[in-house]
Amino acid sequence: MSTEQVLVSLPKKTAAPQHPLGPLTAAEISESARLIKGSWPSNTNVHFKSITLQEPKKSELVPFLTAEHSGQRTPTIERKSFVLYYLRNTDKLHEAIINLSAGKVESNLRLGPYIHSPADGDEIVKVEKIALEDKRVQAEIAKLQLPEGTVVISDPWIYGSDGIDEGLFTDAKRMFQCFLYIRDPNNASEPDGNHYAMPLTISPVVSAETMTVTRIDILPTGVDNTIKEPSPYKVQPPNEYIPEAQTLRTDIKPLNVIQPEGASFTVKNFSEQGHEIAWQKWDFKVGFNQREGMVLYDVHYDGRPLFYRLSLSDMNIPYADPRHPYHKKAAFDLGDAGAGIMANNLQLGCDCLGSIHYLSAILNDDKGEPLHMPNCVCIHEQDAGIGWKHTNYRTGRAAVVRNRELVLQSIITVSNYEYILAFQFNQAGEVMYEVRATGILSTQPIDEGISVPWGTVVHPGVLAAHHQHIFSLRIDPMIDGPINRVVYDEAHPMPRSDFNPHGVGYTVNETPVTISCGLDQNWDVNRIFKIQNAGVKNPINGKPVAYKIMAPPFQKMLADQDSFHFKRAEFADHNIYVTSYKDDELYAGGKYTNQSRGGTGVRAWADRKDNVLDDDIVVWVQFGINHVPRIEDFPVMPCEILKVALKPVNFFEKNPALDVPQSVQSFNKSVLASVNHGQETGEALVGKGGEVCCVKESSKL
Amino acid sequence: MSTEQVLVSLPKKTAAPQHPLGPLTAAEISESARLIKGSWPSNTNVHFKSITLQEPKKSELVPFLTAEHSGQRTPTIERKSFVLYYLRNTDKLHEAIINLSAGKVESNLRLGPYIHSPADGDEIVKVEKIALEDKRVQAEIAKLQLPEGTVVISDPWIYGSDGIDEGLFTDAKRMFQCFLYIRDPNNASEPDGNHYAMPLTISPVVSAETMTVTRIDILPTGVDNTIKEPSPYKVQPPNEYIPEAQTLRTDIKPLNVIQPEGASFTVKNFSEQGHEIAWQKWDFKVGFNQREGMVLYDVHYDGRPLFYRLSLSDMNIPYADPRHPYHKKAAFDLGDAGAGIMANNLQLGCDCLGSIHYLSAILNDDKGEPLHMPNCVCIHEQDAGIGWKHTNYRTGRAAVVRNRELVLQSIITVSNYEYILAFQFNQAGEVMYEVRATGILSTQPIDEGISVPWGTVVHPGVLAAHHQHIFSLRIDPMIDGPINRVVYDEAHPMPRSDFNPHGVGYTVNETPVTISCGLDQNWDVNRIFKIQNAGVKNPINGKPVAYKIMAPPFQKMLADQDSFHFKRAEFADHNIYVTSYKDDELYAGGKYTNQSRGGTGVRAWADRKDNVLDDDIVVWVQFGINHVPRIEDFPVMPCEILKVALKPVNFFEKNPALDVPQSVQSFNKSVLASVNHGQETGEALVGKGGEVCCVKESSKL
Repeated sequence: MSTEQVLVSLPKKTAAPQHPLGPLTAAEISESARLIKGSWPSNTNVHFKSITLQEPKKSELVPFLTAEHSGQRTPTIERKSFVLYYLRNTDKLHEAIINLSAGKVESNLRLGPYIHSPADGDEIVKVEKIALEDKRVQAEIAKLQLPEGTVVISDPWIYGSDGIDEGLFTDAKRMFQCFLYIRDPNNASEPDGNHYAMPLTISPVVSAETMTVTRIDILPTGVDNTIKEPSPYKVQPPNEYIPEAQTLRTDIKPLNVIQPEGASFTVKNFSEQGHEIAWQKWDFKVGFNQREGMVLYDVHYDGRPLFYRLSLSDMNIPYADPRHPYHKKAAFDLGDAGAGIMANNLQLGCDCLGSIHYLSAILNDDKGEPLHMPNCVCIHEQDAGIGWKHTNYRTGRAAVVRNRELVLQSIITVSNYEYILAFQFNQAGEVMYEVRATGILSTQPIDEGISVPWGTVVHPGVLAAHHQHIFSLRIDPMIDGPINRVVYDEAHPMPRSDFNPHGVGYTVNETPVTISCGLDQNWDVNRIFKIQNAGVKNPINGKPVAYKIMAPPFQKMLADQDSFHFKRAEFADHNIYVTSYKDDELYAGGKYTNQSRGGTGVRAWADRKDNVLDDDIVVWVQFGINHVPRIEDFPVMPCEILKVALKPVNFFEKNPALDVPQSVQSFNKSVLASVNHGQETGEALVGKGGEVCCVKESSKL
Repeated sequence: MSTEQVLVSLPKKTAAPQHPLGPLTAAEISESARLIKGSWPSNTNVHFKSITLQEPKKSELVPFLTAEHSGQRTPTIERKSFVLYYLRNTDKLHEAIINLSAGKVESNLRLGPYIHSPADGDEIVKVEKIALEDKRVQAEIAKLQLPEGTVVISDPWIYGSDGIDEGLFTDAKRMFQCFLYIRDPNNASEPDGNHYAMPLTISPVVSAETMTVTRIDILPTGVDNTIKEPSPYKVQPPNEYIPEAQTLRTDIKPLNVIQPEGASFTVKNFSEQGHEIAWQKWDFKVGFNQREGMVLYDVHYDGRPLFYRLSLSDMNIPYADPRHPYHKKAAFDLGDAGAGIMANNLQLGCDCLGSIHYLSAILNDDKGEPLHMPNCVCIHEQDAGIGWKHTNYRTGRAAVVRNRELVLQSIITVSNYEYILAFQFNQAGEVMYEVRATGILSTQPIDEGISVPWGTVVHPGVLAAHHQHIFSLRIDPMIDGPINRVVYDEAHPMPRSDFNPHGVGYTVNETPVTISCGLDQNWDVNRIFKIQNAGVKNPINGKPVAYKIMAPPFQKMLADQDSFHFKRAEFADHNIYVTSYKDDELYAGGKYTNQSRGGTGVRAWADRKDNVLDDDIVVWVQFGINHVPRIEDFPVMPCEILKVALKPVNFFEKNPALDVPQSVQSFNKSVLASVNHGQETGEALVGKGGEVCCVKESSKL
């Protein structure tokens, strides 16, 4: 156990001007904690969950940003922090707003009774221990007759909720469900052994309030929900992922990305902890917080406003096994834990290639101290293949440019699982949000020789249950200004007529979304959602300027509409939600997702049936996968990649990447591969790598 | 006009052993032409269309390959060529089979009357000229009163078919529809000016048989199908794509891919013109032909058979404008022209980065001479980001590997448009087929100030009609052997019951496809198609070994079922077709697509209702886009990327990329970007780039 917290030692800095969007500084975090502690008797033990920037109201911030962009004097906006905390070892959860400018607690509310905070790292480690040190748990483990020296591992899971037994002193309390595993008994000293290959049937439940084991579940392992008493455990072969356990390939040669003149982007601080990135006509601010991790603000292209705020809003991972206690597995990895606090410390040369710039952040620990998060975001450029090409077949001259991308990447570890999260920008005015799902499947024991239709056996005695990953990307748009609408295009065949006598014609028609709602893709009519500014027309073709949303299809929440899974994951039933903007409506699953009961997220906001036509709107894009595990996904799964793209539609007057310099050898410096093995000379006739890529081509049409 | 044909001068070679899958050699092409010419009177002018390998019957080839893989003596298979030719300036189209081993014409059939060959480069250039030199065409152009010195360009288009006026001496003859454009009159000497920004209303039709103009169409330009007499042309501003016409960006810095030890793949000749590639447990043969371009044969992973043959089978691009003559625009770029013969001569440092190996090919010209196609395929490796990662939050140790890919890329120019076609292989046993659509939209004139729902105005006076790109990838599988089946998985909610009391359970169930047919995606049930070998079970979980097909959704053919577009594009109505294997059934739209009438492609083959359960089967995967042009797609469109992936499902026993060496700085040699502009020191805390990427991470859950 070494989730040691490196307390920040701040480098000496000259004070950067404070900015309303700047993440809290270490001093502001400390001051917020001090003010909260000061509002309680001095012997009160405060358990801090989150101390983060309380973003200004949009009505205040828009004038500020407008002034900032026009180089005018900016209005003063008070700095505020949001503090979420418990009185330690109680169920007394509070949310407070601190006015840092005024040095006072502005509000301080106790929440409850059905509202719970996310987990935190210290708490998780304590819960692990409590489960394993409990005498009754140890008695159950003893029944397994594990080999001497076996190491038992406890993985606390977010408890979920099902509406059953929710008296205020039972399941409505904040709990953790611990799943137990062992490391390979034949290699018990290996701290990085893959315990997920050896699940046990014993599952203690720990109260986060009293920090005691309140119940011990025995897990079902057959084709039905029969529970068998723990009996002697059969040790199966291990299934390790660490390189020492593999016979590694020896035939992969180095591939280095070299940027001899450095990177093409610039980074400057717009506040002590806030960063402004400029790259290839793009300009935006980057924040970082406990819950969302990276947040982008004030995104402009070539001086034109595009997005007020972009962030991953939440995700939900409901599982397919209907049996107790698995039926409650449905994690919200942002709301229940936090994409910021779980961010990996990225390592040069391990997590990206090329010229890398790292951003670090300051969050808080459970004592209210600043917590340094080193290298939690990496910024680099990548080559994404050809950007555009045309060869004039008459002259043989090719015009070709490469597609350079700017990537902001953060990698989060949520217990067994990893997500690689990245914003990507390109030279054609496109923004992408990419999720790579990797890490280790959540596993459970299964009897040998059986199979079940709600999971895949990935190792002897190990079941990985099917589950869905459903993400919600929050887009607060300002396409050429703050007043936007969502429309969708559909393509339909023309009916046969004198005008369409051959039955081949089709048209594309646009429908505006007028009232806040959830909307779905329909590939049979090529339904494409666009965020549009109806007040700004393209000067060439008169169409309103827009950005379209290109998201991959996915199966929506499978749990039925009366289930708690469905009620809680308020975003999981539609590809798109459109709501009217309200301050503080940031999280699609609601502000508090841990053991939540629904009714507080985007579905509820859409149900207000607000006007969303030519208004200040928010667009929520859902995407995901129904993860039916393959045995190839174990012990660590190859990345599954999901990508949402936002692309201009009649926003520019022509291809915005037309001014990218040509792709030429003098710039790219490729080489002929020396791979010949039995290959005859004369076979690889080399193109002349001239200054300009003007190819005299033979024999093309 | 310089579609000069570089006749091959063969380097001196020691004779490579001939192989049944080896593309024809220059000598074999010449010999095939000689034998055909010898079968006609000596004064016969033969117009050769295609001289290509006649691949052996599968019943012959499978024993050969089996013997080859086991190192045994291979049986003798006769070399045969397929020759398609006209008696020049007639409609007499013939297909012949030449037995090269025996030195004789084995069969020689005249085809017709409704069967036509694809176009060829010489023919296209002649048709261009004939259209422009025609006196009646010149008289029409004169009415436009173009500025003195204006250059008129003629783009011959595949004529299409509509079933109208198909007497044998009219539209059933082989024709070209020429679309006329001008280059910018103010820059008339620029041979690479973008004439697609200046379309004319005059469209001559040229007979490919008589090589004369048979009709002059005047194009509709309004909101209906009214035809206006040509009148003085209004010259609009140009819209050029060449770099000289741009103010280029100056802030993009070089990014070089350096492979200091060379590439990780090997290439050897398995025949004089055939190449065998080995890379990271992958092994396969590459052929190249006039129609399909790259063809992969005999694809193995770690010695296990996966695919007998992989190729792009065809594509169809039907347009949305229902008005004559646009209603006939529906090109089959492979069947009507040829992905091989249109392949670009790729240039070092322009079309890919890193250590590149080029393959060249030999096709034929219209006189039956060998035609050298230099650098028509490039092979290189690329870094595709993180392959898999897991961080043990207890120890902070991260295990991470990068995802290296092998790419075989070919770029084709089909008149105005480009496709970048690539097979990609990775270290997790996955094969991808990627299409990047780029190039210039097919444009037509439109009156100023109007808009129409079947196209987008992309420049003053220029309409780009909506159109679909529908591709068909042919997969001839041999997943662990030649007998395979297709199954599909679907995920469905469990009904509420005592077993599923909370309504959260779901199951995944598999359905086999028993009879040849077309099948569709259904994302609402997460329908996933797999190619499975029911006779080989995974040793761990007992599931049959399989590869799943991951293809993006698309809107299927919009033209109605009675239209010629629908009848001709036999693959365009279903995501998947499954047929029983028959020799010579290679092209989803039929063997002859030019002015075809349907009934000869995959829909017809599926209609045989053959058994496809545990048999020798072929799987056809369709994908595409409904391209509703944006103004950003002009004058050259940013690449639109489509990707089909084939991924193992219970084929291996664990993640097959587990043995990829860790991603470490000593191998990757990344650097800290020097991008600081106002950034304070201490901000970018660097991870130690040690030998092993063992990250001591702070403060994660």
